[in-house]
Amino acid sequence: MPEDREDKSDELLNLILNVLPSLPFWQSAIKLNDFFIGLTGNFKLLCESVVYNKTLMKKLLEANYDIMIIDPVTPCGELVAELLAVPFVITLRVSVGGNMERCCGKLPAPPSYVPVPMVGLTDRMTFLERVKNTMLLVFFNFWMQDYDFHFWKQFYSEALGRPTTICEILGKAEIWLIRTYWDFEFPRPYLPNFEFVGGLHCKPAKPLPEEMEEFVQSSGEDGVVVFSLGSLVQNLTEEKSDLIASALAQIPQKVLWRYKGKKPATLGANTRLYDWIPQNDLLGHPKTKAFITHGGMNGVYEAIYHGVPMVGIPMFGDQPDNIAHMKAKGAAVEISFNTMTHADLLRALRTVINDPSYKENAMRLSKIHHDQPVKPLDRAIFWIEYVMRHKGAKHLRPAIHDLTWVQYHSLDVIGFLMACVAISIFLVTKCCLFTCQKLGKTRIKTKRE
Amino acid sequence: MPEDREDKSDELLNLILNVLPSLPFWQSAIKLNDFFIGLTGNFKLLCESVVYNKTLMKKLLEANYDIMIIDPVTPCGELVAELLAVPFVITLRVSVGGNMERCCGKLPAPPSYVPVPMVGLTDRMTFLERVKNTMLLVFFNFWMQDYDFHFWKQFYSEALGRPTTICEILGKAEIWLIRTYWDFEFPRPYLPNFEFVGGLHCKPAKPLPEEMEEFVQSSGEDGVVVFSLGSLVQNLTEEKSDLIASALAQIPQKVLWRYKGKKPATLGANTRLYDWIPQNDLLGHPKTKAFITHGGMNGVYEAIYHGVPMVGIPMFGDQPDNIAHMKAKGAAVEISFNTMTHADLLRALRTVINDPSYKENAMRLSKIHHDQPVKPLDRAIFWIEYVMRHKGAKHLRPAIHDLTWVQYHSLDVIGFLMACVAISIFLVTKCCLFTCQKLGKTRIKTKRE
Repeated sequence: MPEDREDKSDELLNLILNVLPSLPFWQSAIKLNDFFIGLTGNFKLLCESVVYNKTLMKKLLEANYDIMIIDPVTPCGELVAELLAVPFVITLRVSVGGNMERCCGKLPAPPSYVPVPMVGLTDRMTFLERVKNTMLLVFFNFWMQDYDFHFWKQFYSEALGRPTTICEILGKAEIWLIRTYWDFEFPRPYLPNFEFVGGLHCKPAKPLPEEMEEFVQSSGEDGVVVFSLGSLVQNLTEEKSDLIASALAQIPQKVLWRYKGKKPATLGANTRLYDWIPQNDLLGHPKTKAFITHGGMNGVYEAIYHGVPMVGIPMFGDQPDNIAHMKAKGAAVEISFNTMTHADLLRALRTVINDPSYKENAMRLSKIHHDQPVKPLDRAIFWIEYVMRHKGAKHLRPAIHDLTWVQYHSLDVIGFLMACVAISIFLVTKCCLFTCQKLGKTRIKTKRE
Repeated sequence: MPEDREDKSDELLNLILNVLPSLPFWQSAIKLNDFFIGLTGNFKLLCESVVYNKTLMKKLLEANYDIMIIDPVTPCGELVAELLAVPFVITLRVSVGGNMERCCGKLPAPPSYVPVPMVGLTDRMTFLERVKNTMLLVFFNFWMQDYDFHFWKQFYSEALGRPTTICEILGKAEIWLIRTYWDFEFPRPYLPNFEFVGGLHCKPAKPLPEEMEEFVQSSGEDGVVVFSLGSLVQNLTEEKSDLIASALAQIPQKVLWRYKGKKPATLGANTRLYDWIPQNDLLGHPKTKAFITHGGMNGVYEAIYHGVPMVGIPMFGDQPDNIAHMKAKGAAVEISFNTMTHADLLRALRTVINDPSYKENAMRLSKIHHDQPVKPLDRAIFWIEYVMRHKGAKHLRPAIHDLTWVQYHSLDVIGFLMACVAISIFLVTKCCLFTCQKLGKTRIKTKRE
């Protein structure tokens, strides 16, 4: 990677937390798009420095790998796999607009009940929501074309020495391991080479460190609340952290807050700050009543695994979508990071803790998660090893990959059948007219005679 | 069941073996349709004598069942389940035209690569085959409406005391256990509440009876051929059985033929007739080289399980489709029961025995069958017990069941969007015309001045 390129995660965080909230919608969209273009440019540079590095590629080729496991949110892996002629398996939570799964993996997504990811819709939509969903689907289809055209098409074609697209290469994946399951996802059509392995990282809780266990036990009947905004958010503005701390101070529960910033002035006696928390062990603790989360997929799945209701404060990426799913399933309340007030946070916390439906729904999801024929991690391992054993999983690959868009949607067939009907109508009409004319002439002739 | 109604299987067999072959296509179709109407009438009578039998229904209700397992090819179970308010699971190989799975279970079936069952198409179709497939899909959709309207709609509505259709009731199935798997099926889209458990009855082979083992061992290097036309076909015409026997006499293999009819005059020394054979144990015997089968699903799956290539002589129901699948996967040769000659049977047998690709393909399917994360029977048991544990499997039920046909296909949304576009174009055109007119007038005015 060229050295002058820096890590983009701080830039993104600054954008989300400080820049975008003060901008109107369109300017936000433009700023985000600019950021995305910069980020993808970085990905592309990184990819070029891999595939055009002959020494590295030779080394990879000689290693004679059986399989590659790639997350296509950062493209390149599929190109390397194709160049090395190694079968590959995809692991993915979701791509922008679900484009890669839908356009490249050919995952069916009827807009009437499969919501476009990341826009907060569910599988039960009103008419206007279905209109929105359909328009978004069309928009994202074009977006994917544009994404390919601007960044990848030419580069991938040059690297492979034949015309191709990123979608064609991604479509060669043997198995798509999607990191969700029906405890999280709305039931939707899928394909035999898609396996839903959400929560594959989840484990039973281990005992807490002694000091932490003592603090948790001191909460008595009220229990504790676990609070983390993930590893990216290290600091908040003083105003924001004071607002949060003062709300937390008002609940009877003890709070464990993962926070590295300055200690807020309003911090209550019930709240302790930690540089790091054993999140999974805390969520699996019987005293845990709620989880305040930014909605990262791993945290959400740990909460599902242990059946803990959530207060979601999503920021970017898949986080709003993750929280929207949990909200739709009745296991979370969502509040906006940018506009939330002290009262909002307090109300949300009291709701998920005191309204028993949230705990019940979280437990229902937990039961669904635990009651599977095979654990998600074992399924993921099985299919990865399957591809290694058989050098692929061609028997699961649908024939749609060999059809054009027009063929897949049967547009040529519909056109042909409509043409047949039109020609038939035309011929029948012509025949009728001809017969009528003939009859008319004969009649006139007869009359004259 | 009213006593004057007789078993229809003999009638069907007579129709297939003796009546239809001598009739032209359209008369065959009408005869078959008449038979089907009679058969469905019987099913309906049977169903009425269950659901209107108050003593029986009371007894069933009091038994307080946890689950019902039904095969909807003979409808009624789903109605009884609905009346008893018991969750039910469907087990099905395939319904006529795949109608029940598609129309009632909402299984997606894009006609571009999902062939309508029972017409011998595969997932790789030419343009004209896709036209045929699309037309068949439309035909079968209407057929399903008609089937419901003529037999079930009114009866089900009366029995339940509210307007309903057979599809609505079938659509309430918690899980559809489809008795195929990707060793047999072409990869196709499906839904979370569909589980493909084909071959769930298959088992490793047990040792053969002593006399049979001796006969099999006497075949030496050449091995044996197993031949069965299933339990329905007990007798053949003398001409047909002579033809078959004389062809079998010409192969070097020993043949075990399950046949209850008169011993054919042309029977070779290498062929033995049996009233009954332990089919699975024979197919699993290392000396077995080929299986001549009518293409019943159980036999085909036993052949897949043990990796035995097939000669298919399908007759009716799902048999032609089963053989078409095996043919498409390169594990079978098909011959027509009605038109086959001595040479046809001999050629087919020699092909599957001597061309190694047939054995290789059969072994490939066998490997796919054996290399699953969970055995089909265990998966079927898991989901049946799941429904019992949780009183259903609602988390797998797609929202499409609550949409109308128009909504599902987004026809209302497309109509709305097209209307919006049309109105926009109209308004823009009007505005342009108005502005042009105004400008024109102003110019004329200016000129005059």
